[in-house]
Amino acid sequence: MIIVMALEATPEQIQAVVERLRSIGAEAHVSEGQKRTVIGAVGDRGLIQQLPWEAMDGVERAVPVLKEFKFVSREFQAADSVIDVGGVPVGGGHFAMMAGPCAVETRDQLMASAEAVKKAGAVILRGDAFKPRTSPYSFQGLGEEGLRYMGEARELLGMPFIAEVLDPRDVELVSEYADLIRVGTRNMANFTLLREIGRQEKPVLLKRGFTATVDEWLNAAEYIYKEGNHDIIMCERGIRTYEPSTRNTLDISAVAVVKRLSHLPVIVDPSHSGGHRFLVAPLAKAAVAIGADGLLIDVHPAPETARVDGEQALLPDDFAELMDELRKIGNAVGVTI
Amino acid sequence: MIIVMALEATPEQIQAVVERLRSIGAEAHVSEGQKRTVIGAVGDRGLIQQLPWEAMDGVERAVPVLKEFKFVSREFQAADSVIDVGGVPVGGGHFAMMAGPCAVETRDQLMASAEAVKKAGAVILRGDAFKPRTSPYSFQGLGEEGLRYMGEARELLGMPFIAEVLDPRDVELVSEYADLIRVGTRNMANFTLLREIGRQEKPVLLKRGFTATVDEWLNAAEYIYKEGNHDIIMCERGIRTYEPSTRNTLDISAVAVVKRLSHLPVIVDPSHSGGHRFLVAPLAKAAVAIGADGLLIDVHPAPETARVDGEQALLPDDFAELMDELRKIGNAVGVTI
Amino acid sequence: MIIVMALEATPEQIQAVVERLRSIGAEAHVSEGQKRTVIGAVGDRGLIQQLPWEAMDGVERAVPVLKEFKFVSREFQAADSVIDVGGVPVGGGHFAMMAGPCAVETRDQLMASAEAVKKAGAVILRGDAFKPRTSPYSFQGLGEEGLRYMGEARELLGMPFIAEVLDPRDVELVSEYADLIRVGTRNMANFTLLREIGRQEKPVLLKRGFTATVDEWLNAAEYIYKEGNHDIIMCERGIRTYEPSTRNTLDISAVAVVKRLSHLPVIVDPSHSGGHRFLVAPLAKAAVAIGADGLLIDVHPAPETARVDGEQALLPDDFAELMDELRKIGNAVGVTI
Amino acid sequence: MIIVMALEATPEQIQAVVERLRSIGAEAHVSEGQKRTVIGAVGDRGLIQQLPWEAMDGVERAVPVLKEFKFVSREFQAADSVIDVGGVPVGGGHFAMMAGPCAVETRDQLMASAEAVKKAGAVILRGDAFKPRTSPYSFQGLGEEGLRYMGEARELLGMPFIAEVLDPRDVELVSEYADLIRVGTRNMANFTLLREIGRQEKPVLLKRGFTATVDEWLNAAEYIYKEGNHDIIMCERGIRTYEPSTRNTLDISAVAVVKRLSHLPVIVDPSHSGGHRFLVAPLAKAAVAIGADGLLIDVHPAPETARVDGEQALLPDDFAELMDELRKIGNAVGVTI
Repeated sequence: MIIVMALEATPEQIQAVVERLRSIGAEAHVSEGQKRTVIGAVGDRGLIQQLPWEAMDGVERAVPVLKEFKFVSREFQAADSVIDVGGVPVGGGHFAMMAGPCAVETRDQLMASAEAVKKAGAVILRGDAFKPRTSPYSFQGLGEEGLRYMGEARELLGMPFIAEVLDPRDVELVSEYADLIRVGTRNMANFTLLREIGRQEKPVLLKRGFTATVDEWLNAAEYIYKEGNHDIIMCERGIRTYEPSTRNTLDISAVAVVKRLSHLPVIVDPSHSGGHRFLVAPLAKAAVAIGADGLLIDVHPAPETARVDGEQALLPDDFAELMDELRKIGNAVGVTI
Repeated sequence: MIIVMALEATPEQIQAVVERLRSIGAEAHVSEGQKRTVIGAVGDRGLIQQLPWEAMDGVERAVPVLKEFKFVSREFQAADSVIDVGGVPVGGGHFAMMAGPCAVETRDQLMASAEAVKKAGAVILRGDAFKPRTSPYSFQGLGEEGLRYMGEARELLGMPFIAEVLDPRDVELVSEYADLIRVGTRNMANFTLLREIGRQEKPVLLKRGFTATVDEWLNAAEYIYKEGNHDIIMCERGIRTYEPSTRNTLDISAVAVVKRLSHLPVIVDPSHSGGHRFLVAPLAKAAVAIGADGLLIDVHPAPETARVDGEQALLPDDFAELMDELRKIGNAVGVTI
Repeated sequence: MIIVMALEATPEQIQAVVERLRSIGAEAHVSEGQKRTVIGAVGDRGLIQQLPWEAMDGVERAVPVLKEFKFVSREFQAADSVIDVGGVPVGGGHFAMMAGPCAVETRDQLMASAEAVKKAGAVILRGDAFKPRTSPYSFQGLGEEGLRYMGEARELLGMPFIAEVLDPRDVELVSEYADLIRVGTRNMANFTLLREIGRQEKPVLLKRGFTATVDEWLNAAEYIYKEGNHDIIMCERGIRTYEPSTRNTLDISAVAVVKRLSHLPVIVDPSHSGGHRFLVAPLAKAAVAIGADGLLIDVHPAPETARVDGEQALLPDDFAELMDELRKIGNAVGVTI
Repeated sequence: MIIVMALEATPEQIQAVVERLRSIGAEAHVSEGQKRTVIGAVGDRGLIQQLPWEAMDGVERAVPVLKEFKFVSREFQAADSVIDVGGVPVGGGHFAMMAGPCAVETRDQLMASAEAVKKAGAVILRGDAFKPRTSPYSFQGLGEEGLRYMGEARELLGMPFIAEVLDPRDVELVSEYADLIRVGTRNMANFTLLREIGRQEKPVLLKRGFTATVDEWLNAAEYIYKEGNHDIIMCERGIRTYEPSTRNTLDISAVAVVKRLSHLPVIVDPSHSGGHRFLVAPLAKAAVAIGADGLLIDVHPAPETARVDGEQALLPDDFAELMDELRKIGNAVGVTI
């Protein structure tokens, strides 16, 4: 931590900071500049970062040098993590295409979509039973019935599935059925939910909050890791900006930033970030080229009847065509899709 | 809903939209422009807004004309709601100062703060027992012990209190103790929690998500209202922008916008929006002048020892001085503080 | 400047940074932490900040401790600047209401507006002859003819006027006519224009770029100051955020932040920030309460015929009523309006 | 234009809107909904969009159906534009790598960089003589001397060059030397400069304002096109968001959005968007995969001595390696690099 003293800070105020650092066993390196004094705090990061330095008299600001997260960082583990999702490896060079309908609506709709994505080459099936909706008047999902249909599709097609959980009380239920638990963008900072998920054994896909910084996102992963669940896949899905032509702005740079800071795999959701069907294929291609470890794509047999997010779902044929294009880009960057 | 057809839309695609509208009992008003056809959909708002119009062939975009929320709107109720918080009215001309420590840390710290804010004129005590923290290594609150201390302070000083709830499983517990339940900014879109809170009987303070639009915030209130709890107070607390000199950017305009769209009271939290002590008084003054129905302010007897957000807490004496200044502005705008 | 070395930085890389600092006459204070080495650079701020520290091997990031601007800072001048605008003082306790039409459209429209704002108590007249418009098909202003009308209004009513300049080649022309030159939000980072304005003698009102940070805004003021023109008034007018219910989000906190960092007066434009007539009065009240040194308000005798921004212009009667309300708030905070 | 009337709009107010539309020769299609009346305005887009509909009594909001720009739209020209830059085609399947130093600092520095990028396969040389800098104390460029060096490099290596112009008075000078004029991100809304550039004959590269929407960016292109210069290349370079780990957030989706809305070529600047050297290669790969028509990359022989933006410049060897990787991705998506 670097503690920058105010211009008018007195020697007593500087001394008080130095002594407070010493009181927690940390060292204080004092630099007196022409205008300001700056104090470098060296010691236990956890202890130092928790104290309200900016509340001390004479302190202008405190600048952290180290990140708050530890276990999910490259410093802690240099090699890429590879996560096993029901037998499918994700990360460390293993690319995983996850696809299916946004929400499970009926058994037939799910099966039509599942067969199509399997045939085109997807390896993990998506389809939610619980949906978080901005309006209380929107379709909220089929609940456990939806999970049962997903289970059936898994048996039939031999592919693991991913499903979202919204409520800490449903974590046990969803983790009994699903192979990969999803934390949605609106719940990335729902620490109660994160802790509960950290205590069960299924791997988890952690979507970035659409207004979270990369650091906050990695701190959210740290919550899960710290509880004992180390099987975490990060998923970039667009952030909220002022630009209205897309639903969110896909922060494609975040893939490279997270891979630099962390050993966890990172995938991209091009469907929810763009919010328009015409953007799915271009964004998916960019994601493969930049080195994402997978994709999460909405595919629906009849998007114009979808109860959730139909405007961004691909048709099965478009998805199959996209898979062909992605394979070529995968070859160019040394990844097998 | 206005459905804007694409430039290249065929007569068959236009007809398909018209028929789909009719199939749900809505009328279609077709306007053929020089370039594009636009279809006005008139009928049941709920039915029309749920369909994925942009997923239909030939549709470029669908623009909603009406808001999704109903019960919390001025259309539904023209008169200001007045919310009773343990005997203290909030809204409709009744201004409520809520103050106290950000988190309950010890019994002594709470009592010192509570006595000070009571003496200066606060009418509702703040102090949290459960804290959502970005880092899993930060102090997470005293839990039920904290609520007990808050209950003691209420008895001693005769002032109701507000406390945050994070977990749907704690809603019953917190609502047994507190007079006003708070939904924090990170949980504004935690619909599971909103529904649970909507089913209990204590009034609720709904903080704006720091990246929520005003419409999303009012939709979150609608979730609570729809479950049966109509006693909702809105709290603006700053939004995330690119500006780094403040922790968040207080969206002061939102007070006027919400008052125009909704009958619910709106208060302002100047402590968490600015994130710096020197901003609390200026922002509080602006909030009173613009017509906020109350304020929520962090006051701590020794901010430099605070375990949460000490850098923005006022000292008791500063708070008392601020109260005097706010009373004068209150008089100027016709509000008794 | 604080230079944070990467985790894997070698002793040679650290030494290279130290030597580079010495080569420009600066001192290097090296702190070796448990994980990282941090180097405090002490010396000539200008020299140190210009070097590309992050381009050196082994450097993770460089954190500036001091701001880049000097002359406009409180460190350079502790007392508030008071700017003389054609005999009207602005800043240091002197509040100035500037009002009039957004654009000069006709002589009659201008005179009707000017008489109304004068009568209600405005002390500086606004009205532009050159307008920057997003679309090339929008009205671009009357040019010099508009400035002549403004000059006539000044003679008739005895009030100085403010007008925008867009083109460095027009600076001489506009400064011949106007008492206060305005740099619009789109030109805040047009350094060519800033320099030209810095070289003439009329005071300048510098609008914040709607996507500029406070630091960038003060750096823009520094450009003008450095050229020799010290008569600068800052004008907050809303920033671009994700919130769609207002045209921009008024960053009311910026008034307090700039006053802390700088000695220059700060006014607020509630018309262009909100973009809706119903927001002008609430935002103006908040601005007076927080301590703004003035306001800039669009007033139009017939807004529904306005060629620019009619949707946010006040009618003369509404403006007069607002003035009465602002006077009361002014009294409450010790300012004469 | 769709005009949405307020809930409480009277029949007279609705009639006033209808009559105003008729008075400008437009048709009014009135839809009466259960709650609100909506009026579709059909007629001359330019006339309709210029009127302040929201300033009329009873109008709640006006939603444009058509974009304001015409000539740069796909509606106006369906086929991709191909721009000739000193003999090098850009767009319509022709990919152009533009590379070189951010700023021309010395003749030697420029030549070293130019030879390296030419050898690695770049086809257009970058290097600025005029630099817009946030701080007035930063290096502002060599001016005409820099342009002369660029001209020498062109002769020597047989490659056209691109250079920025900041001042409308320098447009003639820069266009005499350069093959491609650049409008920088800070000047995208400098309409004075755009108009001047629209009147000369050299092609122009229009960088997106780092806080401009795609629509505003295309309107800026329309300014240039309308003056007679149709040779415009768009350049996405990142937008300002709340995320601090990158200098700006590359809006990769914008490439696909602009290609859908406009016939103009779109290239990407991965150096200035990310602001860090480690991001250049990943972002460049994503840009090729999504279909960008070119790249603009900073290459410097000794970035740690660069006077501008050294922290993001590639070394010549890294650039050559990147070119090899990009060629593979280019092959995968059917583009020759």
